[in-house]
Amino acid sequence: MTQTGISRGQAARERLITAAQELFWENGVAATTPRQVLARSGVGHGSLYHHFPTKRALAIAAIQRTSEQALARALAVLNQDRPARERLRAFLTRQRDALAGCRIGRLTADPDVMADAEMREPIRRYFTALVEALATVIAETGVPLTTATARATTVAAVVQGGYVLARAGGDAHALERATSGLMDLLEGD
Amino acid sequence: MTQTGISRGQAARERLITAAQELFWENGVAATTPRQVLARSGVGHGSLYHHFPTKRALAIAAIQRTSEQALARALAVLNQDRPARERLRAFLTRQRDALAGCRIGRLTADPDVMADAEMREPIRRYFTALVEALATVIAETGVPLTTATARATTVAAVVQGGYVLARAGGDAHALERATSGLMDLLEGD
Repeated sequence: MTQTGISRGQAARERLITAAQELFWENGVAATTPRQVLARSGVGHGSLYHHFPTKRALAIAAIQRTSEQALARALAVLNQDRPARERLRAFLTRQRDALAGCRIGRLTADPDVMADAEMREPIRRYFTALVEALATVIAETGVPLTTATARATTVAAVVQGGYVLARAGGDAHALERATSGLMDLLEGD
Repeated sequence: MTQTGISRGQAARERLITAAQELFWENGVAATTPRQVLARSGVGHGSLYHHFPTKRALAIAAIQRTSEQALARALAVLNQDRPARERLRAFLTRQRDALAGCRIGRLTADPDVMADAEMREPIRRYFTALVEALATVIAETGVPLTTATARATTVAAVVQGGYVLARAGGDAHALERATSGLMDLLEGD
């Protein structure tokens, strides 16, 4: 394969992953068909099966990518060069598309994903790394590390649960109320 | 129809609803087929279509029932005859099957449910009533009502998010850490 052939192949692979990420988010993994991925990506049938011989292989790649991107976005806020309390507030009050839900969190309700250890693994890694990063920031505010770890789990949970409540009520502000209620408790401490 | 016929019909209807509740929880609404509902309930084909002419009608009835049962369980704890702080602690530390997830919360990740206003309605009502009941209890601990409402949303969100984290990591204790981290903040206040 020529250099151009390789990069064209990589471009097709990327388009397939992006299409799968979008469709999984819109419709869930189970309901997404190879036909939809082909239509969304504009990639040919042969190329799909060359890069991803099974739907499972594509799902694993797409979930890994979504997890990496979400973690990079969270760490960009948590590792800013400013005081720990401000970083924590910035994380909790970050703009989120509440009604669309979390691209990672929603996967935990997908039976196809939960039944497959390789699909679950990037999701587990995402939350482990997120809680660790949050615990580091909270500890920097002067809280002992064991307390900081429990609070970090609470912070990650309130965001995930805020999405659930927002979607349940069709009310984007539910996520804001949930995170601001926690922010007040953290800052009053 | 004789009296016995009516009660037999009601019993079949109940068995269908219970089977649908279980299957939706195990596999999601989209993946549940009428054939599975028939097998699980032991009810005949004709009876299914008599009580629930469409899968949608059965789904609405099952989601309504699940929401009512979950709310009754939560209110039983929140309305106990004991001090408000203890009721709040009892709610947060209540035994929950963390890895199985919340029967209501998980429905908000189901695209079939979210796309249907009648299926969404009992879920919305559940969370509205839960947050109201929590706000009443929190206000009884001496917190102003607007603060109590924000905190009530935080409490409901941390439970929902704790389920998400527990399922994501295959770690039931994540839910406990999330709720105990919040409990410490609420009690230290």
